[in-house]
Amino acid sequence: MADTPVTDFATLDAMVRNAPFHRWLGVSLKALSDEGVEILLPWREEFVSDPSIRYTHGGILAALIDLAGDYAVAARIGRGVPTVDMRVDYHRAALPGPLVARAKLIKLGGTLATAEAQVLDDGDRLVASGRGVYLTLSR
Amino acid sequence: MADTPVTDFATLDAMVRNAPFHRWLGVSLKALSDEGVEILLPWREEFVSDPSIRYTHGGILAALIDLAGDYAVAARIGRGVPTVDMRVDYHRAALPGPLVARAKLIKLGGTLATAEAQVLDDGDRLVASGRGVYLTLSR
Amino acid sequence: MADTPVTDFATLDAMVRNAPFHRWLGVSLKALSDEGVEILLPWREEFVSDPSIRYTHGGILAALIDLAGDYAVAARIGRGVPTVDMRVDYHRAALPGPLVARAKLIKLGGTLATAEAQVLDDGDRLVASGRGVYLTLSR
Amino acid sequence: MADTPVTDFATLDAMVRNAPFHRWLGVSLKALSDEGVEILLPWREEFVSDPSIRYTHGGILAALIDLAGDYAVAARIGRGVPTVDMRVDYHRAALPGPLVARAKLIKLGGTLATAEAQVLDDGDRLVASGRGVYLTLSR
Repeated sequence: MADTPVTDFATLDAMVRNAPFHRWLGVSLKALSDEGVEILLPWREEFVSDPSIRYTHGGILAALIDLAGDYAVAARIGRGVPTVDMRVDYHRAALPGPLVARAKLIKLGGTLATAEAQVLDDGDRLVASGRGVYLTLSR
Repeated sequence: MADTPVTDFATLDAMVRNAPFHRWLGVSLKALSDEGVEILLPWREEFVSDPSIRYTHGGILAALIDLAGDYAVAARIGRGVPTVDMRVDYHRAALPGPLVARAKLIKLGGTLATAEAQVLDDGDRLVASGRGVYLTLSR
Repeated sequence: MADTPVTDFATLDAMVRNAPFHRWLGVSLKALSDEGVEILLPWREEFVSDPSIRYTHGGILAALIDLAGDYAVAARIGRGVPTVDMRVDYHRAALPGPLVARAKLIKLGGTLATAEAQVLDDGDRLVASGRGVYLTLSR
Repeated sequence: MADTPVTDFATLDAMVRNAPFHRWLGVSLKALSDEGVEILLPWREEFVSDPSIRYTHGGILAALIDLAGDYAVAARIGRGVPTVDMRVDYHRAALPGPLVARAKLIKLGGTLATAEAQVLDDGDRLVASGRGVYLTLSR
C-alpha cells in the first residue's frame, strides 16, 4: 500500500518526539514517504538486556516496532492511534548501536489498520520484525 | 502446566534485577510458585505515552510481558532464554500506577518453550495479555 | 472473565453446525457455560498433513482455534463475529483421533473482543493453543 | 531475503500435493523463484463460512498462509518443516473464487525460520496476510 501522507515531516516528527517514553528512548522521524516511515533509535546503555553480552532488550525492539507501525498509520490519518495487538519476531541479537525501524501500512480501514515494521541495525541487518493492529475508529 | 521451580526466590529475583533495562524499569520478582511468576513494575513518569491522557506506553507493557514470560521459563530451567517471538494484546489503558505481570508456562520443551502473561493494574483490572516463545535449546 | 451466556446450547450448537466448512469439519458444540465453550472435532482422514506420520494439519488446528474463539464471543453477544487476527501455537503433533477446543473470553468490548482457546487430544494432552481478536462492532 | 531454491518446481509441487489435507484443499505450486513461492487454491463450496454471505472461512485462509510459508522454507532446505506458531490478519472477506498465496522467507536459521505470506483474490486484492515460525532444526 502506498499513498500520500496527510502530515508533513515536521508535524509527524513533532508527534514522534512528544511522548515522554519516546523522549526517553530518543526516537525521531528519519524518513516519511508514500511508502511509509522510518524511525531512528539512537543507542542508550539502559537498553542492555544481558550485561555480559550487551544486546538490546526485546522490550525495546517491541516498543520500536509498535511505535513505528503507529506512525505509519498516523502519517496517513493525521493522528496517533491505540494499538490493539502486536506481534514481534526476533531474528538476531541487536548489539550496541543505533537502530532504524521501517514501517508501512498493510491495510487501512475506518475501524482498524494493520502495519508492519522491520528493525535494522547499522550494518543493515534485520534484527527484528513484526506487525501491529491499530484502532482507527474515531470515538 | 504446574511444576516445581528449580530456582529459589532470591536467585530468580537477582536475575530479574540484573539486566540494565530491568533496573531502569524497576522490575522485581513479586512471587514464585509452581504456577509461575509474578513481576512487579513500579510507576515511572517516563512510561507515559500520550502526555494529555498519561497512559502507559504499549512498549512498556510489551517489555513486561516478554520478561515475565522469560522468567516463567527461567524459574524452571535455571537460566534466561532468548525470545523467539511474542504477541501482545492491549485491553485497556494503563493509567499511572504500579503494574503486576503474572506469567506461566504453557509448554516446556527441550528446543522451545511457550509462556503466557497477564498484566494487571493496581485495581486488578486486566490491561494487557500475551504470550511468548522462547528458545530453550542449549547451544 | 466469566459471565452468563445469552444463547442456549441448542441455538449455539445450530450456529456452529450451520457453516458449510464446519459441516465438512464435523464440529459440534460440546459444552457451554459461564466459563466459555467447548467444541468437538471428530477425526477425518483428510485432516492428515504428512501421510507417513499421519498427524493433523496445522491449518485444521488453526481453524478449530479460530472458530472456538468465535463461538466464545457468540455465546455472549448472540451472533458470530468476523475474526480480525489470530495467533496459533503448536505444542505437539495431533495424531488421528477426536480433538476438543476449549475457548473463553479474555476481553469483551463494544468494538473488539479477545478470546483464547486450547486444543486437547483424547488423552487430554495440549496439542495447540492460541487466541483471536474479533470485531464485535455492529455496522 | 532472496536466494536460489534447492528444489525444482516439479519436486516442490509434488511435495505440496502430497498431503491428504492439501489434496482436499486442491492446492498446487504456481510459482517458485529466488523471491519465494506462490500457491494456488481453487475454490470449493465447502470453504464457505457464513452461508448467507458465502465468504471463505478464516480457517481456510490460515491453512493457506501456514502451508505457503512452510513451502517457502522447504524450497530452500529441501524438506517440509513443523510450524512452531503462526499469525494471521484478515483484511477483507474472500468471496468465492480462486486465491493465491505468495510467501517468502524473512529469516532462515539452523534452528528456526520465519516466513511471511499474503493471500490475494482473483482481483489481486489482499484478503489476508500473516507469518509463521518453522522449526528447521534436524532431529
